[in-house]
Order: sequence, then C-alpha cells, then structure tokens
Amino acid sequence: MTAKSMIPYVEGSSAIRAMFEEGAKLVAKYGAENVFDFSLGNPSVPAPPELNQAIKEVLEEEDSLVLHGYNKSNSGYTEVRQAVAEHLNKEHGTKFTYENIIMTVGVAGGMNVILKVLVDPGEELLVFAPFFAEYSSYAKNHGIEMKVVPPNTDGSGSESGIPFQPNLAAAEKMISENTRAVLINSPNNPSGVIYSEETIKALAKILKAKSEEFGNEIYLIADEPYRDLAYDGAEVPFVTKYYDNTVVGYSWSKSLSLPGERIGYLVIPSEITDFEGIIPAINTIQRVLGFVNAPSLMQKAVAKCLDCKCDISVYDRNRKALYNGLTEAGFECTYPQGAFYMFVKSPYEDEIKFVDKAREHNILIVPGTGFGCPGYVRMAYCIEYDTIKRATPKFKELMEDIKKDIEGNK
Amino acid sequence: MTAKSMIPYVEGSSAIRAMFEEGAKLVAKYGAENVFDFSLGNPSVPAPPELNQAIKEVLEEEDSLVLHGYNKSNSGYTEVRQAVAEHLNKEHGTKFTYENIIMTVGVAGGMNVILKVLVDPGEELLVFAPFFAEYSSYAKNHGIEMKVVPPNTDGSGSESGIPFQPNLAAAEKMISENTRAVLINSPNNPSGVIYSEETIKALAKILKAKSEEFGNEIYLIADEPYRDLAYDGAEVPFVTKYYDNTVVGYSWSKSLSLPGERIGYLVIPSEITDFEGIIPAINTIQRVLGFVNAPSLMQKAVAKCLDCKCDISVYDRNRKALYNGLTEAGFECTYPQGAFYMFVKSPYEDEIKFVDKAREHNILIVPGTGFGCPGYVRMAYCIEYDTIKRATPKFKELMEDIKKDIEGNK
Repeated sequence: MTAKSMIPYVEGSSAIRAMFEEGAKLVAKYGAENVFDFSLGNPSVPAPPELNQAIKEVLEEEDSLVLHGYNKSNSGYTEVRQAVAEHLNKEHGTKFTYENIIMTVGVAGGMNVILKVLVDPGEELLVFAPFFAEYSSYAKNHGIEMKVVPPNTDGSGSESGIPFQPNLAAAEKMISENTRAVLINSPNNPSGVIYSEETIKALAKILKAKSEEFGNEIYLIADEPYRDLAYDGAEVPFVTKYYDNTVVGYSWSKSLSLPGERIGYLVIPSEITDFEGIIPAINTIQRVLGFVNAPSLMQKAVAKCLDCKCDISVYDRNRKALYNGLTEAGFECTYPQGAFYMFVKSPYEDEIKFVDKAREHNILIVPGTGFGCPGYVRMAYCIEYDTIKRATPKFKELMEDIKKDIEGNK
Repeated sequence: MTAKSMIPYVEGSSAIRAMFEEGAKLVAKYGAENVFDFSLGNPSVPAPPELNQAIKEVLEEEDSLVLHGYNKSNSGYTEVRQAVAEHLNKEHGTKFTYENIIMTVGVAGGMNVILKVLVDPGEELLVFAPFFAEYSSYAKNHGIEMKVVPPNTDGSGSESGIPFQPNLAAAEKMISENTRAVLINSPNNPSGVIYSEETIKALAKILKAKSEEFGNEIYLIADEPYRDLAYDGAEVPFVTKYYDNTVVGYSWSKSLSLPGERIGYLVIPSEITDFEGIIPAINTIQRVLGFVNAPSLMQKAVAKCLDCKCDISVYDRNRKALYNGLTEAGFECTYPQGAFYMFVKSPYEDEIKFVDKAREHNILIVPGTGFGCPGYVRMAYCIEYDTIKRATPKFKELMEDIKKDIEGNK
C-alpha cells in the first residue's frame, strides 16, 4: 500500500489523468484534427539548433571524468556559474559573480532547495493567486504553511489598477511575524501577466516595512521560468534590484525548450542577509533532497547558449490568434504579456461547468481552482497555430451553446 | 538568516568542508604528490567511449521537441523503460516490462521518491550499519523515523558468520508494527561487502513473518548504485526474486562513471502490494518533490549503453594494492567484494584520533561514525593507482607512529 499521506496527491493526479484519458478518447472518436487540446504547458517550438551544437562541442572539448563527474561544488561548475553571472550582469546591470549563482535541477529543484534553506517548518509562505499549482506541494514538502493572497481580478487591489497584478493591499494585511517568504511568479502561470516595476517597487516597500516591524527577514522568491517569454518588448523587472532579500529562480525549460533536461539556477545576491550562511546550506540541501547537482553535461551546454532563445514569435502569433478568437466569440480574457497561457473568465460562475461544456465541443481547458482562482480557466497556447485557427469557429459555437444553457436556466 | 532547521545540516557539512580545506592546505604545503586523499567516492575511471557516441547518435536521431521535452509520463520514455526492463530480464531472468521501470534523477532522487510514496510520516525505516550517511537526511525529509541496526562487526549477528553482513538477529528484534520499510545497500558503501544470497533469503524470511505477524506490508528497498562494481565474479543477488514487496534503485553513476548526470531508475515489481496505486503515486511525487522526470537526453543515451561498463579492472587493481598495503602495515581491513571503498578498523578505539593521526601523515580518510559505525574508517580507492603505491610506505610509518602513541599512553 502507498503511504496514507499519498491519498490527496493521488486524488489530484487522478483528476488530471482522467482529463488526459478523456482527451485520448475524444481523439480516438473524432480524430486528432477535431480535438483542441489547450491543457498542457509543454513547449511546441523546438530548441534552437545552437543547443545540440553546443552539446556536441562540449563532448569534444571536455575531459569525460570532469564532464560527467560529480561537481566539486554542489552549486555546479564555477565557469558555468561565472558565465551565467556575466550574462545577467550584461542584461540587467547587476554585479554578480559565480558565487551568486547556484545551478539547479530545473527551477522546480531550485524552489525546493531555497524553500527548505530559508523557511522553517511551521513558518509561513505567502503566494499570490493565481499561482502555479505545485507551490502548495513544495510548501508541504518542507512543513511550510502556505497562505494564498486572493486574486486581484478587477485590479482594485494593485497599485496600477490592472487586473491580475498581485493584490498588494490584501498581502499587506496577511503578512505576520511568522511570514518568512513571499513567492512570486512573473510572467505568471496561469495568467500571462508580467508584474510591473510599479508592483515590484510597492511590494518591496511593504516587505521592508514589515521586516522592520517584526524584526525578521522576509525573503522575496521570484520563480521566473517564463522570464524570456515576454512579448511586445515588455520588460520583466529583475527583482534583486528592488529588494535585497531576494532570490531569483530561473529555468531554461521554456526559453531553450528543454523542460525534460531539468536545468536551471538560483541567484543569491551578496546583499541577502546571511549570504555566508545560505550558500553552504544550499550546497548541503542539494544533496539532502536528492538533487546532488544540476545535470553536468547540460550545465556546460546551456553556458554556450546564454544568448540564444527558441523562436518565441511562434507563441506570439498564437497568442494574438487565440485572444482574437476568444474575444470575438464573446469570452473575457486577460491579454497575456508573457508565458504561453491565456486566462479566461468562465461564463458560468462555476468554471468546472465551463470546462465540461468546452469538452462537449472537443475543447480541453484547465479549471482555475487548482491555481487558486475559481471562476477562470487556463488555456495553454504552446500548440500548433493551425489548431488555434481550426478552434476559432468552435469558440463561437461553444459560447452560443453556453448562452442558450444560461438563458434556459433563468 | 537560514532556517533554524538548517543548523544540524550545516554543522555536518562544515566538518566535511573543514576536511576539504585541510586537504587543500596540505596539497599547497607538501605538493599534490605527497598528499594521499582517500576521502571521496568520485569515479576515477572515465565513462566508456560508447556513452559519448550514444549521446551524439541520439542528437542525430531524435526530434528535438521529444528529446528535450517533458516526458509524457513522469516515469520517463516508454522505450527507454522497456529497454531497461529487457536488460534486467536478460541479466536476472526476471519478467519486467516498461511498466515496472521508473527513470529517476539519480538513485538519490529515486530513494527520496520511493520513501515518500511508501512510508508515512512517523513510520519507521530500518537501515543496517554501516550505511550511506545521506539515508538519515532522506528519512528526515519525509518525517520518517530511521532506526539503525547495529553493525555486525564480528559476524556473529549474520546467518553466515561473515563480518558486515547485516545483523539480522538484531533486525528481527527491532522490527515493530510501525516498521514500514527496510533499506539495504549492497555492494555496500562504506564496507564494500556484498550481501550474500543466504543473507537476502534470511532477511526475506524475517520480513514475510513480521508482515504476517503485524498484518502490514514491510517493504524491502535495495539501493544498488554499486551493483555492477563486483569483483572476482561475485554475484549480487537480485532482490525482487526473493521477496515480493521489494523496490530496487539503480544509478549509472558508477557503472558508467556519470555521477554528475543524475540518471538512474527504480524497479517496481508487479508482485508488489498495490502496484496499481504505487505507480501513479510515484509519477505524482516525481513532480511534487521537484524532480519532474529523469534528464531526458541522458535517458536515451544510457538506453544505448546498457551492456557497457567503465573499466572496473582499474578499481580491482587498486583494491588489491590498497588491501595489501594496509594489511602489510598491520591494519585490519574488510576485503571488499564490490564498490570502491575499504573499511578499516581503527587502531584507536576512537576513530577520530585515527583520522587525525593519518592526516599528520598527509593521509585523508573518513570516520565511520557518519556511517553509523564508530571505530572504523572508510578509504575510497577510486583514485590513481600510483597514489596508492606511493601511500604504501606511509601506511607503515603511520602504524608505527600509532603503536608508539598507544604504548606511550599505557
């Protein structure tokens, strides 16, 4: 028997599996070209050719024992870390060295490491809805209490008045002396919103004031796997510049389209309180949690591709096509500034009804409840452009069907 | 500040770091050729050339989106899992299919996943001293109570009477209704002992009887990163053949010399109780713990190298040279049957004194206390043969020094 503690995890997982199986059934019945799967956040643009070229070069250049061996430091190869630091300095005007960069097993690995290092069991982590669903698991892994700041659906809770910017007014009231960290994710999964500089500055101000009030560090953890998927030249503020006690997590999963390779990093700025204590703690916890070090060949390969990116114009085109298709059909959407997700308001109060109704039209979407934001759904547009074009008339049919349903029930 | 829960981890880590720094100082002072570092278990034999060739082939053959993408199942690529299953069937006469194989982020990842899936917080895990030091961290990660069966230093606790076979007599008394799993590691780090078929059969008998007595499953987890490092044709029994509720963990870190790449697998036999529940739980927990899936390119590469091994004759030669050097100097050693460690009895009751005295002779060794076996030290012989030869006269000097010291204190 699995451990009893597995039951809630497996139930959640079963719901997702049920959705996959349902999708597979639809494909079998109607053909792949008549099923519109917006459920998965798996890159649809291949890695840039430089990546495979870099892997081949690394194989030629490096001594096998070093290339495939344990890293001398659990933080990764010094020269890889230095290259990442210099790349960040060039992009953001920061002053990092290799000592500020920890290579990690994807950013999922990085988040688990830094949460364990910074937050004691029983202490609180604040996240803003909507949030990446796995955060609640990561908190639970380390006995951390996760508190969810309600979503700012109408913009009234943010400095800017823009919907889905974090609800800072609510956050300020929720921070207690037991709050050890605040976790943000921008560009956001699932909303596609980029937290503005105004937002980050206002959040930093709150955190500084609350740290002083309680005489405790409150860390800001920025989970940024979608940093390089920003459209229309939108700026993603580099958070270490606004608040000293910041940790940034990054992954190449989306920017280089290699989510299967599990490669990312943490930035630990020298300004962070107890930098000298945090670094050895991270190295130890990399082993303790079973990560040990980021995959070694892939460390060397990405270090050669720091200026490369997959072709995000493909996602951009999808973004526009999907937004236009949905809004023309009468759906209310947040126009995404980054990542590859559209957050759509459910015409029904209960978005599960919307998900079910969409499935009747062979459209697969994900309920917002799992992201802490009921009443909304997530649609991933990292799919074929043609699928979006073929889905467009279906959106209209779906909306008409829903309208009739709602009218009929009045 | 780091979390308070970090303090014990960082203290342990500081001790190891202090040893490294001391080693670096010795090298700076006396030159690398006059320092004899037996402290690290990092492979010294390069990966077989087939590995890099396989990586290149995979890059040519595979679609980038599939090769570097998320795996459809968090268990890994079906064809890789099937290849591993068939390899095991050929080697051990088992009947596995891909469904029994879960690709993991090294065996450290595999152990963390399976412990979380099988053992509830507060339940007990039994390990046999000497044991790999990280097991206590893995147990603590998931709130599991680890109980250590005392070492069988004179052989009196085992069926065979051979020293460092697990102390089954003590284990039988320690298993309670709260014991959910027993973790074994053979070939053993740090002793180099292979648990014999007689041992495995006797252990299986105890576990069956205790499972019946308490009406509970007791899982046997076999951590086997050193399975393919067995000398003199020694057999490492394949544990699933002796006990149904067994999970085997493997890593290619040592057999292919790629510990930096973090690639291994778990075997979940179909006979295990609740197989249908365990598999989806594992898939979920791969994500929950932040591993997500085993590095994808490396999965495909190792699948092409299942019949390859690094040249273990190098370790074998080291093994003999080190054993002869130490025993001729008068040290008492367990002759290792596998892995690349020698377990040496401390001439002092307190082995820390032995470690300190050895360091005075520029010999770096690791105390047994961290492995649950005080009074012994571990010497890793995955180093240059010449280092062992140059160290041999130093062993005699060390022993003479120790003898004088002990005589002088009588």
